[in-house]
Amino acid sequence: MTTLSPTAKGYILTLSCPNRPGIVAALSQTLFEAGANITEAQQYDDTSSGSFFMRIMFDIVTGTTSEADLRAVVDTMAAKFTMDYRLNSQSYKPKVMILVSKFDHCLVDLLYRWRIGELPIEPVGIIANHPQDTYKDIDFYGIPFHHLPITKDTKPQQEARIIELVDSSGADLVVLARYMQILSNDLAASLSGRCINIHHSFLPGFKGARPYHQAYDRGVKLIGATAHYVTRDLDEGPIIEQDVERISHADSPDDLIRKGRDIERRVLARAVRYHVEMRTIMNGNKTIVFVS
Amino acid sequence: MTTLSPTAKGYILTLSCPNRPGIVAALSQTLFEAGANITEAQQYDDTSSGSFFMRIMFDIVTGTTSEADLRAVVDTMAAKFTMDYRLNSQSYKPKVMILVSKFDHCLVDLLYRWRIGELPIEPVGIIANHPQDTYKDIDFYGIPFHHLPITKDTKPQQEARIIELVDSSGADLVVLARYMQILSNDLAASLSGRCINIHHSFLPGFKGARPYHQAYDRGVKLIGATAHYVTRDLDEGPIIEQDVERISHADSPDDLIRKGRDIERRVLARAVRYHVEMRTIMNGNKTIVFVS
Amino acid sequence: MTTLSPTAKGYILTLSCPNRPGIVAALSQTLFEAGANITEAQQYDDTSSGSFFMRIMFDIVTGTTSEADLRAVVDTMAAKFTMDYRLNSQSYKPKVMILVSKFDHCLVDLLYRWRIGELPIEPVGIIANHPQDTYKDIDFYGIPFHHLPITKDTKPQQEARIIELVDSSGADLVVLARYMQILSNDLAASLSGRCINIHHSFLPGFKGARPYHQAYDRGVKLIGATAHYVTRDLDEGPIIEQDVERISHADSPDDLIRKGRDIERRVLARAVRYHVEMRTIMNGNKTIVFVS
Amino acid sequence: MTTLSPTAKGYILTLSCPNRPGIVAALSQTLFEAGANITEAQQYDDTSSGSFFMRIMFDIVTGTTSEADLRAVVDTMAAKFTMDYRLNSQSYKPKVMILVSKFDHCLVDLLYRWRIGELPIEPVGIIANHPQDTYKDIDFYGIPFHHLPITKDTKPQQEARIIELVDSSGADLVVLARYMQILSNDLAASLSGRCINIHHSFLPGFKGARPYHQAYDRGVKLIGATAHYVTRDLDEGPIIEQDVERISHADSPDDLIRKGRDIERRVLARAVRYHVEMRTIMNGNKTIVFVS
Repeated sequence: MTTLSPTAKGYILTLSCPNRPGIVAALSQTLFEAGANITEAQQYDDTSSGSFFMRIMFDIVTGTTSEADLRAVVDTMAAKFTMDYRLNSQSYKPKVMILVSKFDHCLVDLLYRWRIGELPIEPVGIIANHPQDTYKDIDFYGIPFHHLPITKDTKPQQEARIIELVDSSGADLVVLARYMQILSNDLAASLSGRCINIHHSFLPGFKGARPYHQAYDRGVKLIGATAHYVTRDLDEGPIIEQDVERISHADSPDDLIRKGRDIERRVLARAVRYHVEMRTIMNGNKTIVFVS
Repeated sequence: MTTLSPTAKGYILTLSCPNRPGIVAALSQTLFEAGANITEAQQYDDTSSGSFFMRIMFDIVTGTTSEADLRAVVDTMAAKFTMDYRLNSQSYKPKVMILVSKFDHCLVDLLYRWRIGELPIEPVGIIANHPQDTYKDIDFYGIPFHHLPITKDTKPQQEARIIELVDSSGADLVVLARYMQILSNDLAASLSGRCINIHHSFLPGFKGARPYHQAYDRGVKLIGATAHYVTRDLDEGPIIEQDVERISHADSPDDLIRKGRDIERRVLARAVRYHVEMRTIMNGNKTIVFVS
Repeated sequence: MTTLSPTAKGYILTLSCPNRPGIVAALSQTLFEAGANITEAQQYDDTSSGSFFMRIMFDIVTGTTSEADLRAVVDTMAAKFTMDYRLNSQSYKPKVMILVSKFDHCLVDLLYRWRIGELPIEPVGIIANHPQDTYKDIDFYGIPFHHLPITKDTKPQQEARIIELVDSSGADLVVLARYMQILSNDLAASLSGRCINIHHSFLPGFKGARPYHQAYDRGVKLIGATAHYVTRDLDEGPIIEQDVERISHADSPDDLIRKGRDIERRVLARAVRYHVEMRTIMNGNKTIVFVS
Repeated sequence: MTTLSPTAKGYILTLSCPNRPGIVAALSQTLFEAGANITEAQQYDDTSSGSFFMRIMFDIVTGTTSEADLRAVVDTMAAKFTMDYRLNSQSYKPKVMILVSKFDHCLVDLLYRWRIGELPIEPVGIIANHPQDTYKDIDFYGIPFHHLPITKDTKPQQEARIIELVDSSGADLVVLARYMQILSNDLAASLSGRCINIHHSFLPGFKGARPYHQAYDRGVKLIGATAHYVTRDLDEGPIIEQDVERISHADSPDDLIRKGRDIERRVLARAVRYHVEMRTIMNGNKTIVFVS
């Protein structure tokens, strides 16, 4: 990510539309006329669906184009090409609500990356179904903590409270950082496209509960983790990132859990980074990830 | 793999038995008394089943112990500890029958590794359900080729012929090098423990047909291949080796097939190597693999 | 790599020029007006040097623009932006001369990938400093073989003959597929940008001779291979691709050589693929590789 | 790591000695007679040096053998075979002194693994050449913190103070967790075999300062990190563990530093784990690592 000038104003634009010739030409010409210099651009034609996807980073280097002006310009393009688009300043830091259960390695890792300035997010809350004492060894740096216990009977109320907190905090993104409760279809649907989960297996292998024990029982030689957008279909959401590590017959389920922690935290952190840097676009049940 | 002396005679012993204290002591003492020097040893206690597994490489360095003498010595230990065991000279090259369908990359790779002396096997035949002309670009170096076409109606006869060829050739190992026919339960059972298949997915994900297309449709970020012993349960046999490579949303099914070829051939070659070096022991539906 | 229509004519354009605003806009507008639909595009701003690099795949979907017309159009852009560029049909298969010494695994692998249609090249010759009998087990499929023995005294003559063969065969690319002779500065310079070497170490570690023995002596835990463009500075050329595999203290130098063969052949094959698909652009002593 | 009985007492024994036939037999017989059941055993014959190395995990399952009894038994064997050995209870947690400079990712990671019980160590102190305020966001859980500033002139005094703290704390292991001062030969020598450093490159590539900038300048396609025992020769100590991640031409030095943090912390954590589980034995300028 580069800027040509310290006074330049940087933006990220992602878009999708039906594919047809001339999109790139029209868009780059329009942006150029608006004073933009494109610093990074990636595109993908999904020939199976006829859809076109693009991510553009640019700086306003000439003139005094404001963000409102820019939006007006892009709106015109969007109307012409039937585009969905998102436009953000490169300095924008999404507000993030983190949900967690007992295991805190993903939570701690995200907070660390945020604290040292590696992950451009603004944590606006932590929601846990375990009491705060569970996390007594973690410094939350003043991020609001919400204990929302859950039972079979109170699930609707608990989820309603989650939605309230997400809404009232203005969270742009919800991260399930080893939150071990299954979201209801309604909650999953309401968070669609703005909720990332880390599943502790290499999906589609070992869906459901206790995947490391499943992996141990099956005798696989590599274990993995999967970060995906949450959808109504449990463990079926669009995959953002996956990774694996080698294991052997001598590894116990506890060894897999230990090795898995390392995989989970780095896979989740990468997925969150891709999302907040607007490198991801959902494409049906898949995710386009524009890594440079 | 090391020998202390050019005149030493090397052996490999693998065994399994119910675990109890003293096995290693008794065995190493007995081998020492038989003139052996242990050069490599690995063991595994499966505490869930109470079984003990071991692989020992040794050289006969003193005295004139013959292979027959050695077997008598090990038989005594086997009786005492209720062991199953296999004993082979380190110079032993298993006879291998290779089955193949249209795609020849695994076959070509195995033959290459054999030709340059990397893989200590003796190929005794190639069985294909496609005619020899399919492989006209491959030099078989005189290895007998058998065209066994198969239809739904002729499957029993075709499989009977496979068994005949395996038996008459004295094959110790059958390798399904992208042989795209599903073995009947009977054939699978009769080859149990001496038949390795390469499946072109990271099992247990994407069992069955066209796994790369399944992987494409699911939008995974890594694809893999799995070498396993063949059992009655299709794609459920004990896994010997797996590996993966990264893909992206931009990879078409054809790209996955291309990248997959590289994974398949190296995973299958490693699995065959582990087997012929007696590094593998089946343990229920899993495989112990003693890699050094 | 996608085409919107079976009658479309596809091209690949790569270019570099001093960076300034408006390049993408001007180029995409110009190509659009020439009847092109851009199907893939990647760009890189090297802010340290102020250079801009781009790779564009496009189809001529409207009108009857010929390749000559296209070149005229791009020439105009090139003059305006002081661009270096390369333009080729997507169906273009570069002519490749392969140099080899005793070890044939990279040669065999390249020929296999070419034979099955995976690697879009046209082999125009094989040059070896060992006699043809060394490769008696390899089918050259009629590719001309040239035995060019070399001694300290005959090196200038041998290299002159190499250049003659490269020139007379019209080779676009020279691949050193474990060719174990050090090219003279003159030969290296004359092949600059069109000669790829595979070095059997993870550069910059273990330059020079016997890198696997160096790796063994140093006790590293991973070994690797490096494909790079050949330049005057031995083992210092712009790196195209690298990969590694894990080893252990128990691996002998021969084990490293064996494991290394697998790394070498896949690293070299990837590098050649990147080059022939015009995914690479040399940038000083580095290589930009636009992988999708 | 398994115990056959909750009342069993577990030990780990590592040893090295000149190789000769009968070591394993004598040792396993002796341990058996002392009431031990071997649960894990690994060995390595270094044929180049004629040395034999072994790691044995065992439980005292019969009789009432005390640790003192055990040591007497092993001493007898050690005398007979000229062995160096180490014997520890499996429940032993080494005392660890951690040295750190400005970057805290390795320190934070080690403390996290210790806090959740993943890493069996007892931190006895943290030494930094930066003031405690640098680490104000880190919870040290009461571990003594020592600020030892260093200048060119005060280096001898500072190092003397380090030795005092290591000695007075009873530290068994010193971990240089991105401690950016070069140890003097004297300090390095005095800590030999009990000091692990993490170097932020894939050694032997990019020794010395600013390795990520070196990697960027060279244009490598993978970056790595190396954990090694500290010796007099800077960046030349016996390597314990290495790992890598893929980068591209588009990654800036800052991107490499960010990606590198993930590699560094997992490589260092693995190396410390291997050491404290007594899986490592130094063998000249190499490290034997018995991973299961």
